[in-house]
Amino acid sequence: MLYPQEFDVIVVGGGHAGTEAAVAAARMGCRTLLLTHNIETLGQMSCNPSIGGIGKGHLVKEVDALGGAMALATDEAGIQFRILNSSKGPAVRATRAQADRVLYKAAIRRRLENQPNLMLFQQAVDDLTVEGDRVTGAVTQAGIRFRGRTVVLTAGTFLDGKIHVGLNNYSGGRAGDPPAVSLSARLKELKLPQGRLKTGTPPRLDGRTIDFSKCEEQPGDLDPVPVFSFVGDAAMHPGQVPCWITHTNERTHEIIRSGFDRSPMFTGKIEGVGPRYCPSVEDKINRFAGKDSHQVFLEPEGLTTNEFYPNGISTSLPFDIQYQLVRSMAGLENAHILRPGYAIEYDYFDPRGLRRSFETRQVAGLFFAGQINGTTGYEEAAAQGLFAGVNAALQCRGEEAWVPARDEAYLGVLVDDLITKGVTEPYRMFTSRAEFRLQLREDNADIRLTETGRRLGLVDDARWDVFNRKRDAVSRETQRLRSVWVNPRNLPAAEAQRVLGTSIEREYNLADLLRRPDVTYAGLMSLNGGAYATAGVTPRALGPLWAPVVEQIEIAAKYAGYIERQKDEVERAAAYEHLKLPPDLDFMQVEALSIEVRQKLNQHRPETLGLASRISGVTPAAISLLLIHLKKNRFQGFAEAANHGGKAAA
Amino acid sequence: MLYPQEFDVIVVGGGHAGTEAAVAAARMGCRTLLLTHNIETLGQMSCNPSIGGIGKGHLVKEVDALGGAMALATDEAGIQFRILNSSKGPAVRATRAQADRVLYKAAIRRRLENQPNLMLFQQAVDDLTVEGDRVTGAVTQAGIRFRGRTVVLTAGTFLDGKIHVGLNNYSGGRAGDPPAVSLSARLKELKLPQGRLKTGTPPRLDGRTIDFSKCEEQPGDLDPVPVFSFVGDAAMHPGQVPCWITHTNERTHEIIRSGFDRSPMFTGKIEGVGPRYCPSVEDKINRFAGKDSHQVFLEPEGLTTNEFYPNGISTSLPFDIQYQLVRSMAGLENAHILRPGYAIEYDYFDPRGLRRSFETRQVAGLFFAGQINGTTGYEEAAAQGLFAGVNAALQCRGEEAWVPARDEAYLGVLVDDLITKGVTEPYRMFTSRAEFRLQLREDNADIRLTETGRRLGLVDDARWDVFNRKRDAVSRETQRLRSVWVNPRNLPAAEAQRVLGTSIEREYNLADLLRRPDVTYAGLMSLNGGAYATAGVTPRALGPLWAPVVEQIEIAAKYAGYIERQKDEVERAAAYEHLKLPPDLDFMQVEALSIEVRQKLNQHRPETLGLASRISGVTPAAISLLLIHLKKNRFQGFAEAANHGGKAAA
Repeated sequence: MLYPQEFDVIVVGGGHAGTEAAVAAARMGCRTLLLTHNIETLGQMSCNPSIGGIGKGHLVKEVDALGGAMALATDEAGIQFRILNSSKGPAVRATRAQADRVLYKAAIRRRLENQPNLMLFQQAVDDLTVEGDRVTGAVTQAGIRFRGRTVVLTAGTFLDGKIHVGLNNYSGGRAGDPPAVSLSARLKELKLPQGRLKTGTPPRLDGRTIDFSKCEEQPGDLDPVPVFSFVGDAAMHPGQVPCWITHTNERTHEIIRSGFDRSPMFTGKIEGVGPRYCPSVEDKINRFAGKDSHQVFLEPEGLTTNEFYPNGISTSLPFDIQYQLVRSMAGLENAHILRPGYAIEYDYFDPRGLRRSFETRQVAGLFFAGQINGTTGYEEAAAQGLFAGVNAALQCRGEEAWVPARDEAYLGVLVDDLITKGVTEPYRMFTSRAEFRLQLREDNADIRLTETGRRLGLVDDARWDVFNRKRDAVSRETQRLRSVWVNPRNLPAAEAQRVLGTSIEREYNLADLLRRPDVTYAGLMSLNGGAYATAGVTPRALGPLWAPVVEQIEIAAKYAGYIERQKDEVERAAAYEHLKLPPDLDFMQVEALSIEVRQKLNQHRPETLGLASRISGVTPAAISLLLIHLKKNRFQGFAEAANHGGKAAA
Repeated sequence: MLYPQEFDVIVVGGGHAGTEAAVAAARMGCRTLLLTHNIETLGQMSCNPSIGGIGKGHLVKEVDALGGAMALATDEAGIQFRILNSSKGPAVRATRAQADRVLYKAAIRRRLENQPNLMLFQQAVDDLTVEGDRVTGAVTQAGIRFRGRTVVLTAGTFLDGKIHVGLNNYSGGRAGDPPAVSLSARLKELKLPQGRLKTGTPPRLDGRTIDFSKCEEQPGDLDPVPVFSFVGDAAMHPGQVPCWITHTNERTHEIIRSGFDRSPMFTGKIEGVGPRYCPSVEDKINRFAGKDSHQVFLEPEGLTTNEFYPNGISTSLPFDIQYQLVRSMAGLENAHILRPGYAIEYDYFDPRGLRRSFETRQVAGLFFAGQINGTTGYEEAAAQGLFAGVNAALQCRGEEAWVPARDEAYLGVLVDDLITKGVTEPYRMFTSRAEFRLQLREDNADIRLTETGRRLGLVDDARWDVFNRKRDAVSRETQRLRSVWVNPRNLPAAEAQRVLGTSIEREYNLADLLRRPDVTYAGLMSLNGGAYATAGVTPRALGPLWAPVVEQIEIAAKYAGYIERQKDEVERAAAYEHLKLPPDLDFMQVEALSIEVRQKLNQHRPETLGLASRISGVTPAAISLLLIHLKKNRFQGFAEAANHGGKAAA
């Protein structure tokens, strides 16, 4: 049956990628349909009950700045919040939260159910309809055909999913859920560049059987409790609870090694490659044979359940080994396993087969996001989902794709890495992947992206208002600090010592003083009984915005030097970053280049010079030669740019 | 791998039957394991979001009186409560509640997770282990072998489940869940008497697209709000919301008829028989062709969702017909379907193959409960689950099975009907199935069963205390009413008129007066400014028990006559009800009986005379002849009983 209504964007899958894709497209005014095999599992956290962390928290804040759901849902569901790296520079500081699974799912479902322009429909998708080289819709298990101008596929681990526990394995999309076998077969027919990856999850434990007195308590940050969303508030959080820490030991490692001969990973039963940076415990024992203990975090799964998630012992070893290894650890001597750990293998598609917009090259209008692109992590999925949702919506509007640059967002780094470098294992985000990480901070994700989000139609009035009030307060106060001068004659020595740690010999403005390492904004404002303070920047005037405003003012002052220096580098690189290469350019004809470079370029067919520059083996010198070629042959727009870019690359 | 610990009772399945079985066995002190394919779906309401109703509410109250979970979970999750038949006699009055699905699941999961002696484990069960003719455990999908002295199988619709939408069909245990195919095949190998049934569910609607102004509002009872559990309280309830009513019309019926040629039911695609008393809408249109409209109740699925359940249009018609038929009704002109309606076919096993305890005859220690026994309904499942759980626990203790009589509980009627009569379609409870229904009321389920529950170990101290306080208050007050006399000289005419509707000519005790149809307990207590009241029966003295105590006192007074008469009948019948027939009796040798009766008896092999008397075609006269035979042949225990029973049957 053909469904009577046609949609602009059909999102297939209701996980973290699908949720953000659907919300984004609907916010942008597209008639959007989300197809899921089960409405009850919308927003389900399939693996660890936590959101954020280094690199990942950055993505969540970016999704939030662009009007996404993940950060606010975490604020509503988070039962422990921490700022990681809080003693380090602001660039690598990151927010991480434990979430109550039930509350998280409820928060996501409420957003999806109430999003205007978005319809939900429960049925597994078995097929896509394609006319010529363009996708035209999706067909469900019961044969219902939905027409869509674009389709965003976010199939997670479901495509031909295969679950492994020891040498046993069976089909499944996730523990308890059926796999998507027909759809996998159909995508193979479309000759998309497909491969297999694997990921895993640890056994889950019954908290009633854990002896917490033998574990180390790890409380969250309580003063203040961190907040994820730029429009969030600690008052949204439910009750806060601690995590607990135990450790593997020599006995644990012996048990694990004794199961190697029945490990599906080590015996070749699993063909897919797993995430190196989120390894199974058997992987860790195997690779770091010298280490005699690993930390295991016992994370509560929620406020109303006794279930605990032992972060650090993801495993696909046979269940008897799981049982013993759990019980070999302090506090877990009598622990009951509620769900066995397992690995899951699934189809992914080489993201180098995608356009910059995440549209597939083979099938116009078909976008991929999330694990299907070879990534791992809720946050990476959410960011991609939003990105693909936006670009599907832009295509429907007949507008150019939106692609944030690498110096603009971790999302830009993620997209660029995926489409240029592809993956050899499930890709996760790290701050080290971002060459511009000093400016890609959690704290300024809104400054970086909210205006773009507003322009795209993702940012509603409430968020826009908060953003503007914050930005204006920061800007006004930054100017004021530069204009208010402190004269040594007016500053008693004791006050100078208390706030600045030293006396001053000449006049300084407040901005200069704030640049000093140990001087705080609050300290400056307390000088001489508040003589330099302003009524505009107080908790009373700004409410929950006060702390973020002060943070921005301090960071801008203290890191201005570093950031300026990085900006110069960015500007030099930017000149050729966005230059589009002619689509009909035959790289094999660029004779100045080595055959190897020509082949690489022809193989990847980069859309911009920036993309070309990041293909491994393509050196800055090669880029210069390519520019000269383009200029000489008068490709449109390259004459002038080539001069500039040539200088930058020289 | 063999799981190290052995369990007394392994419950397979986490629906309404599995929940009650697990809680009951664990409460009785058995080491109990609940195996479910997905912990997230524990307590899921697969079909309508409501609990109770006529006959069904009775079962829920009985399960509650025996310490079960369903009534309290409904009190915690119920968003609309009504007393059905409130204007009729107390025997047919019944409680019905709409439940918030999310809250209901949470309430059930909390009980399961926190039940001492009960462990949960997530893995689909693929196999049972049997040694000789005795079950010894269960094997999960990943090959984990759990040893159990008994196994209670509550597989719902999952055994070889097949979902139909129009002429399309696919494997599934429930929409979104995988079926249990391996286990189905394994049970077939065990040569248990298997068949196929079907049930169905309607499409679900997006409340944002319903025009409620065109529907009739149906509020719940608000003064007072009914309560399900004997230890529950209206303060437990979340917010209360109304349901809405719309109707099918001639156009709807035309649309439905236009899909008959693609109906899996009418074209023979579905082999299983569906529930006659909970028919699909196409069945209704087909069977009641003269009726030009049917009521459709729009039931809210919860407080935090926009989803609505249109009760009355369960269907497996093709989706295009579903789409049109929904939109043909007032208020639903633009309704968006969130989930299509469907029918599901599944394996059941002839319950006549069960012992009175619900243990299978073929495999000792293996118990069946719920839809697997050919029933339909959450309440029927819960009652059976509790029953099977109790009997599995009793078997582990080496004690006799517990089987409530037909005059003791609807549970007794349910069990007895199933094992003697079997099913030809999914069985649901009705008050008309209970010949002793005047005494099998909702209001006295606790009086009937809580003592038994306490003896079995199902009833905890808190419930036992509430029960005793209620029973004692009723008993004391009933005695007092009989002993307090009202003299006409002390009763002013106006007072007599106000409370009794007439003057009295002689002395009456309060119990006699209360027996009069229009006289209430509250009225009597208000006579002469409260001269006949007692401080022991006031809201202040009894708290939430006051209303139930007054109810019991009134019902006992008003219905004493009817109940006495029914008791006589019950007593006469009881004499032979419980007499066990010799297990080695060859009915073919009872020459006084007709060949047909002998064959029927040999086929069913009833365990008691009561069971024998209810086999269709076995008349009271035949029972008399059988008794004479048993007495003549001096079968143990029959000589004396036969005299009595013979008289009764004469």
